[in-house]
Amino acid sequence: MIVLGIDPGIAILGYGIVEYKGNKFRVIDYGSVQTSSKLSTLQRLERIYKGVDTLIKQYNVDEIGIEELFFNKNVKTAITVAQARGVAMLACAHNNIKTYEYTPLQVKQGVVGYGRAEKFQVQSMVKSLLNLDKIPKPDDVADALAVAICHCHSNKFEKMIF
Amino acid sequence: MIVLGIDPGIAILGYGIVEYKGNKFRVIDYGSVQTSSKLSTLQRLERIYKGVDTLIKQYNVDEIGIEELFFNKNVKTAITVAQARGVAMLACAHNNIKTYEYTPLQVKQGVVGYGRAEKFQVQSMVKSLLNLDKIPKPDDVADALAVAICHCHSNKFEKMIF
Repeated sequence: MIVLGIDPGIAILGYGIVEYKGNKFRVIDYGSVQTSSKLSTLQRLERIYKGVDTLIKQYNVDEIGIEELFFNKNVKTAITVAQARGVAMLACAHNNIKTYEYTPLQVKQGVVGYGRAEKFQVQSMVKSLLNLDKIPKPDDVADALAVAICHCHSNKFEKMIF
Repeated sequence: MIVLGIDPGIAILGYGIVEYKGNKFRVIDYGSVQTSSKLSTLQRLERIYKGVDTLIKQYNVDEIGIEELFFNKNVKTAITVAQARGVAMLACAHNNIKTYEYTPLQVKQGVVGYGRAEKFQVQSMVKSLLNLDKIPKPDDVADALAVAICHCHSNKFEKMIF
């Protein structure tokens, strides 16, 4: 099963693509779709959609995990990021791929086994499970890989959104 | 010039399509794209995208005005609506139509000429300018027509986003 994990964002959308077979992981690709703040909102949304669409097609993705947004203060930022998340999800829908949402807590739970784990613990576990030399940067990329791992690990609390 | 006005939403996205020629308005169509809460988020986003895309193509829209989101409390609602707004904007981008954002204050200013106008004043002006028998319902539809009128009236404070 090839899983795409997405950590949504407008400036940086992190992605991680892993193969999960017989309880073993193999990293296929990871990185980010980045959009400059010099572009218009529409241009940024278009690039994010195109970026996610291209990844799904290129790697023949079977299932997708996408992190839920969690903001408690800045509504303006929340709106900007949510617009980006909307078009990322639309790319999933247009490709007819099963897509699941995970809260940050569920991701920690699914990777480390403990919902209140520190960011560093999650990143170390990502590095270890995927046999990486170092923790991928920026954080959005490591987070996206964590979402992919979480999706592979979890059949319990997953919430299918498509 | 044929203008599409959009009042973004996830359950109800209001739209209004008007022709503006020699300072006169002609209503072409108005209504809403509605999605049931029984659908998955992805399905709802897909329908919104499809709905806006269809309107743009069907009416040969020249320019689009879309209202900016304004929330000061409920971040969760803001995120849900912003995701919908993101896919509506993507439909505009994919059709390569010039798209402009207006704040609620700018819409009031552009329709009534007074940024602190009451909702009823805006709706009455929409009815009057467009020669309608009554104020369209729900509010989202009247709001979308107001955005379209605002766009036609304003060359000053418009902010092109594509």
